[in-house]
Amino acid sequence: MKTMLSLDEASEIMSGICQATGTESVELMEALDRVLAEDVRAAEDIPPFDRSPFDGYALRAADLASASAEQPATLRVTEEIPAGNTPARTVNPGQAAKIMTGSPIPPGADCVVKFEEVSAEGAHVIVSAPFPSGRNIIPAGEDMGKGAMAAQKGTVINPAMIGLLASLGIQDVPVYLRPKVAILSTGNEIVPTGAAVLPPGKIRDSSAFALAGALRTNGAAPLFLGIARDEAEVIGEAIEDGLRDADMVITTGGVSVGDYDMVKEAVRQIGADALFWRIRIKPGAAILAALKHGKLILCLSGNPGAAMISFQLLAAPFIRRIAGHARWQNREIDVTLKEGFKKPSLCKRLVRGHLVIEDGRAVMSVTENQGNGVLSSFIGADLLGAIPEGSGPVPPGTRIKAYMTGG
Amino acid sequence: MKTMLSLDEASEIMSGICQATGTESVELMEALDRVLAEDVRAAEDIPPFDRSPFDGYALRAADLASASAEQPATLRVTEEIPAGNTPARTVNPGQAAKIMTGSPIPPGADCVVKFEEVSAEGAHVIVSAPFPSGRNIIPAGEDMGKGAMAAQKGTVINPAMIGLLASLGIQDVPVYLRPKVAILSTGNEIVPTGAAVLPPGKIRDSSAFALAGALRTNGAAPLFLGIARDEAEVIGEAIEDGLRDADMVITTGGVSVGDYDMVKEAVRQIGADALFWRIRIKPGAAILAALKHGKLILCLSGNPGAAMISFQLLAAPFIRRIAGHARWQNREIDVTLKEGFKKPSLCKRLVRGHLVIEDGRAVMSVTENQGNGVLSSFIGADLLGAIPEGSGPVPPGTRIKAYMTGG
Repeated sequence: MKTMLSLDEASEIMSGICQATGTESVELMEALDRVLAEDVRAAEDIPPFDRSPFDGYALRAADLASASAEQPATLRVTEEIPAGNTPARTVNPGQAAKIMTGSPIPPGADCVVKFEEVSAEGAHVIVSAPFPSGRNIIPAGEDMGKGAMAAQKGTVINPAMIGLLASLGIQDVPVYLRPKVAILSTGNEIVPTGAAVLPPGKIRDSSAFALAGALRTNGAAPLFLGIARDEAEVIGEAIEDGLRDADMVITTGGVSVGDYDMVKEAVRQIGADALFWRIRIKPGAAILAALKHGKLILCLSGNPGAAMISFQLLAAPFIRRIAGHARWQNREIDVTLKEGFKKPSLCKRLVRGHLVIEDGRAVMSVTENQGNGVLSSFIGADLLGAIPEGSGPVPPGTRIKAYMTGG
Repeated sequence: MKTMLSLDEASEIMSGICQATGTESVELMEALDRVLAEDVRAAEDIPPFDRSPFDGYALRAADLASASAEQPATLRVTEEIPAGNTPARTVNPGQAAKIMTGSPIPPGADCVVKFEEVSAEGAHVIVSAPFPSGRNIIPAGEDMGKGAMAAQKGTVINPAMIGLLASLGIQDVPVYLRPKVAILSTGNEIVPTGAAVLPPGKIRDSSAFALAGALRTNGAAPLFLGIARDEAEVIGEAIEDGLRDADMVITTGGVSVGDYDMVKEAVRQIGADALFWRIRIKPGAAILAALKHGKLILCLSGNPGAAMISFQLLAAPFIRRIAGHARWQNREIDVTLKEGFKKPSLCKRLVRGHLVIEDGRAVMSVTENQGNGVLSSFIGADLLGAIPEGSGPVPPGTRIKAYMTGG
């Protein structure tokens, strides 16, 4: 088992784990924020016919070639086409059809002239200037040509895609199943959040809730396994329960080096293959990854802040990958630190903050309280800035890499 | 009624509409992505006691003041405090307590020395160097002191806040109700999306679905009113139905200047007060805002792309405001256009695209197909760039303002 690896090495190992998630079909409106499981091609043009963007007259541009104020062209109006109606006639030379916004262009016509550009006289329309062929005609397939890729497999379905799928007449959408992820909290000091009065020496289980939220945000379905005491057998049994029902198990606590850190022993006892233990980041160094029945067991720190950072850097991309996202990795960007960071960084240090665009530049504003146990500094945070291993204090204005974690 | 106003004037008018949304209490896990309706203050310190970040010995720094390799301090270990247990004894001069990560610091102790920094001999621990008072003691209230503002009213509840609320023992969270928004599609050319074969001259109702998705994304609950024919009475009745059940009505289509544009007439007939009609933007100029019984009726273009732009610029901020968001406005940032835009812009032109951070700069990549009817170019788009009124063609590298629409 590898130990004390870099974040990149740990990511590399995790990206080698193959877990396939199934698919299901959901109703169009329920597909919002899900991940599309198949490419969707347009079975027809969207919109399906050439149409007029204005109210006016559909006519033949050739009829207007020599039209002028002195010698206007006079065309006979043969029909009126409100939107939703089909043209009944072909527009022949010397003819025009009154047409409404969104109506199909009648055969023969190759140009639409707006009401305000012409004058109507009884059954005739008088045009005093030439107009080019093709003017004011929105071609069929403006949004999407027949056979074109409407939506790609692995894309998160946003409101516009819902609309596009609706315009194609699609009512049921193939999406990937949400990966089920079981969460186990460990530690004799942990009591359920429901405890109104906190017994002395105890703390409430906050990590499980923060992680459950983060799982949902990343498209997974959380499953609470409860709280296990610091006993290897108890923890091992709970992990096995989780593996039965879920695609992955996440634990918090007991993964460091102390006498009561029983998670590593529990993982060994249930016969899981350990992949790595501890990585060179701060916070979040205490982490163990193991595999059983092809399913990942990821054991995070008992410190809520540290657990959240490990989750965002390693668990979230993994979950998005098995959930079918085409773009599953955290985006990395260059940012300028607005506030400095005073402590030196022996390990790669992850600082919480948020992206601000100032005068066209990407600036990272660092949140105040960066402690291992601290959750409050993740509220409103959408970036994890990475101060390189071996850095001294970092002054304001320093350029660093940051991971976009999406909050 | 004002007409042909600027986007800012239209926003200004809408921001004057007061609509209050009620509140409800939801279970902690269901509060994710909802808007907090009350300030939450910490009723106790989080964490609630001073604790040790490592396994080691809790002792009195004064006992080590003159400790050295030659003259180490020898302290008697009086108890062991596993995490979750409460210290039974005070650490008196010459004493130490074995302590585990997360355990409460016993009274009397003011310093924790790690296992690896000392040697243990039977019931004694031998320390060969001085350590300062306060070392390795995480104070109570590290995350949040008693009485501190844990979470502010108007904040969208993210995973970390769920965790923070859990650590405070909060199980039910006061959140704002989702505003109910009714959607009415108008137009004789519109058929329900379920139509497998499209009759000639017809198109499927895509806007209603795109808008319903966008409503959900902005925290509102959509309500479909169906499709109304281009008749003022039919449209008016449907709008009145919507006003009965919802906090706001959005319509699409029929809001331009043509013979069949019946929405304005419908709004007049039901006795609503028109606030403005048509704004100087492209796409999205065709828009009508009216008020009845203090509720907003917002009538958007029948072109799905144009409707989406008006929605993002005017409807989304309005909805976030009545939904209680403290930060309800679209964020405006400076971006550099990666691709230029060839057409001149008589009106303020909104272009769809997405934010890319390139070499620390905010760059906007413009999506290809910007047509009024086009939804596909909103897929993956999170910005609306604003090319100022009266601009000629805009070359790549131009600096413009852009609204962050969040996709």
